[in-house]
Amino acid sequence: MKIDGRPYRTIFPEADGGAVMVIDQTRLPFAFELKRLANLDDAAVAIRTMVVRGAPLIGVTAAYGLALAMREDASEAGIERASATLAATRPTAINLRWALDRMAAMLRRAPETERAALAFSEAGRIADEDVASCRAIGEHGAKILSEIAAKKGGTVNVLTHCNAGWLATVDWGTALAPIYVAHDAGVPVHVFVDETRPRNQGAALTAFELNAHGVPHTVIADNAGGHLMQHGQVDVCIVGSDRTTASGDVCNKIGTYLKALAASDNRIPFYAALPFSTIDWTLSDGVRDIPIEERDAREVTHLTGRTDDGAFATVAVVSPGSPVANPAFDVTPARLVTGIITERGVCAATEEGLAGLYPERRKAA
Amino acid sequence: MKIDGRPYRTIFPEADGGAVMVIDQTRLPFAFELKRLANLDDAAVAIRTMVVRGAPLIGVTAAYGLALAMREDASEAGIERASATLAATRPTAINLRWALDRMAAMLRRAPETERAALAFSEAGRIADEDVASCRAIGEHGAKILSEIAAKKGGTVNVLTHCNAGWLATVDWGTALAPIYVAHDAGVPVHVFVDETRPRNQGAALTAFELNAHGVPHTVIADNAGGHLMQHGQVDVCIVGSDRTTASGDVCNKIGTYLKALAASDNRIPFYAALPFSTIDWTLSDGVRDIPIEERDAREVTHLTGRTDDGAFATVAVVSPGSPVANPAFDVTPARLVTGIITERGVCAATEEGLAGLYPERRKAA
Repeated sequence: MKIDGRPYRTIFPEADGGAVMVIDQTRLPFAFELKRLANLDDAAVAIRTMVVRGAPLIGVTAAYGLALAMREDASEAGIERASATLAATRPTAINLRWALDRMAAMLRRAPETERAALAFSEAGRIADEDVASCRAIGEHGAKILSEIAAKKGGTVNVLTHCNAGWLATVDWGTALAPIYVAHDAGVPVHVFVDETRPRNQGAALTAFELNAHGVPHTVIADNAGGHLMQHGQVDVCIVGSDRTTASGDVCNKIGTYLKALAASDNRIPFYAALPFSTIDWTLSDGVRDIPIEERDAREVTHLTGRTDDGAFATVAVVSPGSPVANPAFDVTPARLVTGIITERGVCAATEEGLAGLYPERRKAA
Repeated sequence: MKIDGRPYRTIFPEADGGAVMVIDQTRLPFAFELKRLANLDDAAVAIRTMVVRGAPLIGVTAAYGLALAMREDASEAGIERASATLAATRPTAINLRWALDRMAAMLRRAPETERAALAFSEAGRIADEDVASCRAIGEHGAKILSEIAAKKGGTVNVLTHCNAGWLATVDWGTALAPIYVAHDAGVPVHVFVDETRPRNQGAALTAFELNAHGVPHTVIADNAGGHLMQHGQVDVCIVGSDRTTASGDVCNKIGTYLKALAASDNRIPFYAALPFSTIDWTLSDGVRDIPIEERDAREVTHLTGRTDDGAFATVAVVSPGSPVANPAFDVTPARLVTGIITERGVCAATEEGLAGLYPERRKAA
């Protein structure tokens, strides 16, 4: 996607191959800055501190992180150590493990001396595949939006939670890809953007993306979505996913479950858009089995933003001395999910639905 | 309730009767300051800018505002004008209209020269009745909490949204009154406090109150409640109400509906605690008929808090240029409400339930 008319990906190797560049998402929406990841530690810190975030982008960053690590130690132990370091950065997103497993399996088959170069090209391949995959998700999901627009004879109002846009992937996004594709095709789309406390990825990133691309949108507090749905102001919900079980349970940013409940209560279709790498074929009960990351209390107690004079300030907003809990994700049971939009098409949020799109996995299981 | 060991009400006349003092709730939790309301305008501004907030406290402040107005113009036209000014400050809370109607009816029966003095004593009576009413709500609601604690054999985990504590009333609160009464009686209670975006009354006011009173609590993002309920961490929800229909629909701070959906989905009891003055006997369909206040976008786009060096700063947190919607309340349909806790007892959230507690209203209707 474009920033000030110039096309960007969220992650790309430096021209001389010396390092990997990422967009520093902790600085958005007020500053657009690139950050250079020169080694394994840089990559791990970038994932942990959410310089990069979003399940697909975390996976690609981990792949590049492993590639950077291979330059220093391409031994079996080096692969092991770097994989463990990167896997420990975020516990919920399954793409991280998927990317590391794919990289490690490939690297182990190669001679040690070739591993660094091979790792870089494999990471690049994963990035390219992510772009193609997101673009395909966009095509499949855009059909849903254009059908609603046609039936309604007017603007489709989409509600989304958190940021599953191009900033969460390498390009295009997952939940936002259908919106971009539909908008570019002339389908009238308007997006309600949940601000997504505590880290405000909706207000900071999704709004920034949609604004940059010219997609009409309205930012709302996370609390407002149910009310809008009760009053017919939302036609469809689309969210991303950080891990999806083989049975169609969708783990996504904390608060997603509440919107799925409201959508169900108001008979509004609720979709999750995700690439195959987000599916955890080993799990069938998401609420019971997906580990939920508990993040720092300071994400809730403090907010950083821009003051009227353009400086950045961090302010406390919670009564001093009060304890805080900060679970980062929740699980939306499959029964509340109308459908799953993947790069292969749209399916029911059921074991049969997913197995139908990925028959090779049914065999593997 | 006490602040630094000294008992306070949220609103009280100055010792010499010259003006009315209120706790400035826009300064909490970081500063405890009183504000002096010397005339009608002061009272109207205090309600509109949320120096005072919470349905019961808004009603009492309006009553005192009318009393202050009577000093300048106690004519029929003066009553009319002051009532209209105060009624226009907030559209959703029904207590405001209830208090103004009660005051105006009383004043019209009195000679003009006595109206100012009478208005002050009537406002004081409304304040005293509010305290008694909230205390009674506390007694009735505490029984529910102690029953859960006894059945469970451990701490009752209550989730509440926004601030329906003593700061929302004259003393004790509505949703928090049962918690205070139970806690004071030795029932082990722990409260999950929704931060309650966009104005953060949970993080700022409810957490401040519970902390001051020593009630164990945990502040969470509004998004987190559903996840906690899925994992058995919430035993009961109690919220306040800004207007309740005769059929038991509960209008409360935006986001309440989402928590009621999650409670229902996880079979967790969901109560609304409210005094009779919150019930609008003229309405039966809350979603359709209760006017929902749309507040300033800046409440969503900007946050004010305290920096590490103790100063206050206001920061922008939404991507610049993005439009914002900010509905302040939503309506929870009666079907999601387990029961309504009033000063007369607990009843089903139905027309029969409420009419059973208020048989005189059935006759009036």
